[in-house]
Amino acid sequence: MESEKVTMLHGGGGVYMQRLIREHLLPRFSGLRSRFTVELPLQALADSAVVEGVAFTTDSYTVTPIFFPGGDIGRLSVAGTVNDLSMVGAEPAAISCALVIEEGLSFRELDKVLDSVRETAEEAGVEIVTGDTKVVERGKLEKLIINTSGIGVRSRLLDRNLKAAGRTLESRWLSASNLRPGDKLILTGALGDHAVAVMLARGEMGFQAPGVRSDVAPLNGLMEAVLEVGGVVAAKDPTRGGLAALLNEWADASGLGILVDEEAIPIHEGVRAACDILGIEFYELANEGKAVLAVAPERAGEVVEALRNHRLGREAEIIGEVTSEYEGVVIRTGIGGLRYLPAPMGDPVPRIC
Amino acid sequence: MESEKVTMLHGGGGVYMQRLIREHLLPRFSGLRSRFTVELPLQALADSAVVEGVAFTTDSYTVTPIFFPGGDIGRLSVAGTVNDLSMVGAEPAAISCALVIEEGLSFRELDKVLDSVRETAEEAGVEIVTGDTKVVERGKLEKLIINTSGIGVRSRLLDRNLKAAGRTLESRWLSASNLRPGDKLILTGALGDHAVAVMLARGEMGFQAPGVRSDVAPLNGLMEAVLEVGGVVAAKDPTRGGLAALLNEWADASGLGILVDEEAIPIHEGVRAACDILGIEFYELANEGKAVLAVAPERAGEVVEALRNHRLGREAEIIGEVTSEYEGVVIRTGIGGLRYLPAPMGDPVPRIC
Repeated sequence: MESEKVTMLHGGGGVYMQRLIREHLLPRFSGLRSRFTVELPLQALADSAVVEGVAFTTDSYTVTPIFFPGGDIGRLSVAGTVNDLSMVGAEPAAISCALVIEEGLSFRELDKVLDSVRETAEEAGVEIVTGDTKVVERGKLEKLIINTSGIGVRSRLLDRNLKAAGRTLESRWLSASNLRPGDKLILTGALGDHAVAVMLARGEMGFQAPGVRSDVAPLNGLMEAVLEVGGVVAAKDPTRGGLAALLNEWADASGLGILVDEEAIPIHEGVRAACDILGIEFYELANEGKAVLAVAPERAGEVVEALRNHRLGREAEIIGEVTSEYEGVVIRTGIGGLRYLPAPMGDPVPRIC
Repeated sequence: MESEKVTMLHGGGGVYMQRLIREHLLPRFSGLRSRFTVELPLQALADSAVVEGVAFTTDSYTVTPIFFPGGDIGRLSVAGTVNDLSMVGAEPAAISCALVIEEGLSFRELDKVLDSVRETAEEAGVEIVTGDTKVVERGKLEKLIINTSGIGVRSRLLDRNLKAAGRTLESRWLSASNLRPGDKLILTGALGDHAVAVMLARGEMGFQAPGVRSDVAPLNGLMEAVLEVGGVVAAKDPTRGGLAALLNEWADASGLGILVDEEAIPIHEGVRAACDILGIEFYELANEGKAVLAVAPERAGEVVEALRNHRLGREAEIIGEVTSEYEGVVIRTGIGGLRYLPAPMGDPVPRIC
């Protein structure tokens, strides 16, 4: 039975959030009509919508603490929105930056975040064209919430990329609806660095893992490199709820099974250690600089090569494939066994992005 | 000397917010480059940016309480963003809805807000195409913050409207840079209803003004009606900081003076009474369903008539004009005196939108 109140789980990227979206948001926001053409509607639950050919996305960032090894809320807010545009095959054209600030935040901290926003925008080659500034009373917020929204245009490489898949596709954007049995799943790098870095930065865990830094990065350049190769049919970044949420969403959306080879998944030592100590599945950890790509099998090798030649994809691996042999998400473990990977209830690390 | 910490004033739409924007945001966000064409850049501080011909805007809504006479945070979040698009001459094409929810918010309250979002979107004829859902721990937020961003396309009426001004204009969008001496300033209705309704809903004032309801409403239909007439060169909605902030921004942006006839400004009785009791200038009160239009003088009469024929513009009045005789914003009072209307420091009612 559903609780009558919103819980932390409802913001966790897993089953509870899906339920909030499907039971409270979609029924209300469906069926609105305008004279404009919507290609990827709200119901697609894609990383971006497409309206009149323009990709459009939004995210509010509530991460705590606002500074953590490898990044901060400023870098996160630019990278996250750039990535949501990139995952559908759009080139980011401009982003917005709306600040809600807690009264009493020092300008020193604010400026540090804003410097990071600027540097990350520069790295991604995107302009910040509009914004908003609100302040709320001390104690009614933790320092800062940033919303960035973004608009993007269809990548000039997307048509050729999709054609290289060598088959008819459901969507003319990168989309889970394009998945077919045999498509290879490529992970662009190691899992869990962001979640563990933020979690440890809270200092509540009783241990440190000095080598672990958030992977937060804008992926538009990396996506351009793989679209240049071609054959990518779907892409998504495993943020809240991690790989487990992403793959279950893809299985649901496509009605197909997904088989993952656990041994193939790159994980850094500090993350593995943290997962062992805390009893957390690395599959559920949030990432902010990684993508999962579904690629037509004949192009998968070349895509991996292109990824490894990019500074943000050096540890890319083929980690599995789309299959009609199973339903849901199935993991082949190191010793050759098979097990289901369920969608997470929420995120093991709340307030992660 | 500037304080080292962010204060409530910095979110108030007045001089302190302008300073935050000009000293902390613009220097960092200026000079970013992309291959995309930006017509109304961040520096224009217009209600929307225009990128590749697409109008784009964002606002985070932090109003407290979330329900108030005449509206709620849901209606506010849709109307505010629709209005920001409408004020540059764009037709709203789609909006986003990003929720940050306090753990423990009841689904009853959430659903009531979401119903209001839907109804207002329906009223404005705009689809909600993308969103985000975050939850933060109890006590770390007051119930709910909503960010809506919006994209819009150039109104099909805009070219003809601008041509009807009968002169060469600085901008091909509605913009303060188009102002010229002689332009009439039209206010679409009474001032201050939103601010007073929200303030009294907090129950801290020790009195009530039963007739006062927020004016919050999407103005895209009203704007369409006036563009149909033609001759409108600039438009802006007097939200935080009210008419005082708006007119001072226009005076600054154009380098021209603005003369306002105080007697011509429509004010409802309850608002006037609240201002008298609290010693507040109605010029500084926020509105969420009003616009100020600058109109070529020969079209001003017809524009007022078109406004009065629309349910949201029945109390429209010509309240003043652009002038080269004075600098800044000058009020002609009831007894015929002249006084400067300074830009407000902040908003007399914090957390108003």
